[in-house]
Amino acid sequence: MTDLGFVGLGVMGSRIAERLLDAGHCVTGWNRTRTKAEWLIERGLRWADSPREVALASDVVITMVTDTEALRQVTGGASGLLAGLGEGRVYVDMSTVSPAASRELAERVRATGARMLDAPVSGSVATLEEGRLSLMVGGDAETFERVRPVLEAIGPTVTYVGPNGQAALMKIATNLGLAVQMLAFSEAVLLAEKGGISRETAVHVLTNSAVASPMVRYRGPFVLRQPDEAWFDVDMMRKDLRLALEAGLEFDMPLPTTAVTNEFLTAARGMGLARHDFAVVFDVLAAMAGVEARREAREP
Amino acid sequence: MTDLGFVGLGVMGSRIAERLLDAGHCVTGWNRTRTKAEWLIERGLRWADSPREVALASDVVITMVTDTEALRQVTGGASGLLAGLGEGRVYVDMSTVSPAASRELAERVRATGARMLDAPVSGSVATLEEGRLSLMVGGDAETFERVRPVLEAIGPTVTYVGPNGQAALMKIATNLGLAVQMLAFSEAVLLAEKGGISRETAVHVLTNSAVASPMVRYRGPFVLRQPDEAWFDVDMMRKDLRLALEAGLEFDMPLPTTAVTNEFLTAARGMGLARHDFAVVFDVLAAMAGVEARREAREP
Amino acid sequence: MTDLGFVGLGVMGSRIAERLLDAGHCVTGWNRTRTKAEWLIERGLRWADSPREVALASDVVITMVTDTEALRQVTGGASGLLAGLGEGRVYVDMSTVSPAASRELAERVRATGARMLDAPVSGSVATLEEGRLSLMVGGDAETFERVRPVLEAIGPTVTYVGPNGQAALMKIATNLGLAVQMLAFSEAVLLAEKGGISRETAVHVLTNSAVASPMVRYRGPFVLRQPDEAWFDVDMMRKDLRLALEAGLEFDMPLPTTAVTNEFLTAARGMGLARHDFAVVFDVLAAMAGVEARREAREP
Amino acid sequence: MTDLGFVGLGVMGSRIAERLLDAGHCVTGWNRTRTKAEWLIERGLRWADSPREVALASDVVITMVTDTEALRQVTGGASGLLAGLGEGRVYVDMSTVSPAASRELAERVRATGARMLDAPVSGSVATLEEGRLSLMVGGDAETFERVRPVLEAIGPTVTYVGPNGQAALMKIATNLGLAVQMLAFSEAVLLAEKGGISRETAVHVLTNSAVASPMVRYRGPFVLRQPDEAWFDVDMMRKDLRLALEAGLEFDMPLPTTAVTNEFLTAARGMGLARHDFAVVFDVLAAMAGVEARREAREP
Repeated sequence: MTDLGFVGLGVMGSRIAERLLDAGHCVTGWNRTRTKAEWLIERGLRWADSPREVALASDVVITMVTDTEALRQVTGGASGLLAGLGEGRVYVDMSTVSPAASRELAERVRATGARMLDAPVSGSVATLEEGRLSLMVGGDAETFERVRPVLEAIGPTVTYVGPNGQAALMKIATNLGLAVQMLAFSEAVLLAEKGGISRETAVHVLTNSAVASPMVRYRGPFVLRQPDEAWFDVDMMRKDLRLALEAGLEFDMPLPTTAVTNEFLTAARGMGLARHDFAVVFDVLAAMAGVEARREAREP
Repeated sequence: MTDLGFVGLGVMGSRIAERLLDAGHCVTGWNRTRTKAEWLIERGLRWADSPREVALASDVVITMVTDTEALRQVTGGASGLLAGLGEGRVYVDMSTVSPAASRELAERVRATGARMLDAPVSGSVATLEEGRLSLMVGGDAETFERVRPVLEAIGPTVTYVGPNGQAALMKIATNLGLAVQMLAFSEAVLLAEKGGISRETAVHVLTNSAVASPMVRYRGPFVLRQPDEAWFDVDMMRKDLRLALEAGLEFDMPLPTTAVTNEFLTAARGMGLARHDFAVVFDVLAAMAGVEARREAREP
Repeated sequence: MTDLGFVGLGVMGSRIAERLLDAGHCVTGWNRTRTKAEWLIERGLRWADSPREVALASDVVITMVTDTEALRQVTGGASGLLAGLGEGRVYVDMSTVSPAASRELAERVRATGARMLDAPVSGSVATLEEGRLSLMVGGDAETFERVRPVLEAIGPTVTYVGPNGQAALMKIATNLGLAVQMLAFSEAVLLAEKGGISRETAVHVLTNSAVASPMVRYRGPFVLRQPDEAWFDVDMMRKDLRLALEAGLEFDMPLPTTAVTNEFLTAARGMGLARHDFAVVFDVLAAMAGVEARREAREP
Repeated sequence: MTDLGFVGLGVMGSRIAERLLDAGHCVTGWNRTRTKAEWLIERGLRWADSPREVALASDVVITMVTDTEALRQVTGGASGLLAGLGEGRVYVDMSTVSPAASRELAERVRATGARMLDAPVSGSVATLEEGRLSLMVGGDAETFERVRPVLEAIGPTVTYVGPNGQAALMKIATNLGLAVQMLAFSEAVLLAEKGGISRETAVHVLTNSAVASPMVRYRGPFVLRQPDEAWFDVDMMRKDLRLALEAGLEFDMPLPTTAVTNEFLTAARGMGLARHDFAVVFDVLAAMAGVEARREAREP
């Protein structure tokens, strides 16, 4: 078993770390808020006092943080992750950041003698718990082969995409579809409802139909009842769509449904719904349709 | 076993009839072109000389035709299906037509003493052959219960939606998502490709990701190689989107991603691609992006 | 001076008839509601008891009604306009109807021995009163030359477009821009406002800028204060956009901004604003942006 | 008369400088490429060797450059404009940059003792030459009053918008409409053309209709014949739309027609048309419609 490190023990990160512990790995971890990691420490996680110390204790160290800014904070500085890397170590970033930011970080890692992979995931906590998570991996192929067993312990589907930054791009390209599918799903539910079909029936039919992606099956029922806590909120999804639209500008790639959907996420913010799961685009569309979105049940 | 009738033995209809024969039902059938039904006759289908005679020979008669006009042709006139209906018989229409046309037909059926259900399917030949087809059913609940076993022999998931016309509406609402998902999928593939990822890799990742609906899994690979024969061509999908947009107008329901996607199907026609599977929206977007859609491999 | 007839003395039609009276023409008129025409009768209009009698009394008879259905009512039947047409007469329809409906009517007119022109106008009452109305004319060129002086008395800009139905098409193509420009204008005003600029200032700048079409100049100030009576309401504009989108389907012409804007007009209906001037798309967008549209001042 | 300075003597800047010389002002100027300013020097412009020297020689100094980066280059450094500013001087930036960049620059100007205004223009060379340019002005009201006569010599319509950065925002909000109007205009022309009306007739009718903004009147005829040199090319318009969309993200303001239109400008780049006037969105739409855009006449 490999000595692993894990920085960023949030909702998703902590469950991945748990999975690695369950697989018998030795895992050293760090999180900005230690209390959130207590349950993992009880299950065998070794606590370290900084990202740098995590890196020093590990052959392979993984990060999973919110955005590019958070990634800079855990990697840079005297107690940052980069300060603990060196020859022979591998660093795997599972955050969703821009391809450019990922490539730039990979170069700085290379300067320490270590190697980096970008390995974002497609899927949510539910997908992970069902053991059906997908990982895409960017970086050099040799490094990928070295850590492949660790990545396969996280999600069974692991696809090598290309050089550093390519998996970050592939993740962004994947996520644009999440938002678009959710808005199209909302159109279908509300069209059915305005034509006299109950919302429950419409959701039932659609989540068993040819459009029922994993996203639609997990998130579709949110239009009946919003979850107490957002799985992936409007701001997080906007961040990803922004990365997609900026990549579209950079590569001269028109993204028509993405662009339209992004405006509905912006409207969700305009309507004060930023902290809800991005399934709340349904509420924006319902407002335009003059339909009650049952929001009363959603706001504490 | 019930005496069944089947009018409209096209690509989908004939395979459903086959499935009913395999389940041990006695099936009488009719198709505009008899030659297309020869293989079914060899497998036990009884041929009738008109839709009327199919109805006369059956307790439950099913139609599956292309559009509202084709439905009028097989149901009306002296040799039409309505002329053979009467007290105690049930007529199930599995075509995709407008809710209004379906409701109107149901009233004419009722005038004969028979009862009608609208029971369109969600899924393709592939879904049917995997035994995973979804049916939605509109009509009175009692009639539905009478024919439920027959419908369950076709697809395991059968959902009662509401009065006549409601299943037709639910089908239209479902299908709008097929087109939108295909365009969003094309955006993702081409964004990845313009950023340096191979089209094959992008398709592989996406068809194993959280956006991988049955539609995406079956049709996604078409952007690598168009099928020899369209599963569902641009014109058929345009017909369905038009029904959705007209229902949107009728019910005051805005359908933003549907409306945008519809313009790309129109562009597919403008670019001379009407007879291709609707996955060809990929080619429209590729043209806008200045990317080769490998169309040479698609046109004989 | 020619003996003229005028059927359809609504807001716009009555002012055109007034203009023709002022130019010295003898005008016979008919309207579904006679009371609305009293002021014109006082100014010299001769009243007739049916469209047929208007036609019988006139060399050139003009209609200006709401839609295709209204046009059928005034032209057909025993007391309809067609019953009064014959060799030597010219019939000019200024309504906005589908090109197909216009062509079909022209054929029926031709069967009476008369000739028809479609001559819709671009502009509103304000444009007319400033003497700056534009007319487009479809039909045979010879007939156009015969009535050209009458048309020029209505609006100075008269453009011959082509055979019957072409002016109807050109009108529809023109009107799609009205709706799109109004939505884009609303985006600009609200973006400025959310950035801290007063709505009044934004409207002032925009109505004096490079985007200030006559439509923007007349209708832009409506976002400050809705008019007491709609100049052109949501339903009328939706009718025109629907004609445009149907023409787009017929001719395989994608209309992306038109399609998106149409969904906002649908949303206006969904939000209960159908009877307001179509400038109310501003309110739909304001709702999405979480901005108060000052609607209180608009609803009596 | 005031001693004026002018930095950035491109197509638009040089003509504004000419106008100020014609009005009797003493104008000192600088441009990155001196040869482009020779004709102005012959007409009385005093040449300076750096932006700093322009500032030192002037009471009021104006800049008009391409983008934020170019603005940084002419204002910063030892020979930059800021190095020549000080108590009592006014600096007027007429470039189109982001509101944030403009506000930041205004603070640095204030630190020198001088005052800055953002004063972008709406209109093109043609508008300027007709003496109908609009200026919007951001900054403190007192400074605005001091230089108002100079600004009114440039364009007759001068509107004070608010504090620093607000005119930059108002300009961006104005320009989004240019792009959207051009795409909607293209939809109208091509719809008419596919229905059998000549492109020339369609352009004639539209440029005399209620949608005929100054932009439509100047740029509409470009769909008949592209100008030899772009007035405002795809990349410049994309820069402005990007600023608008980023402001929309910042202020939570959905911009649906802007977002869709932006994707068509991206497509123009994808199709290799970046250097054409942005009227070339017509060609993108024509390609989707299967219509010849007569591009042969446009590419030398």
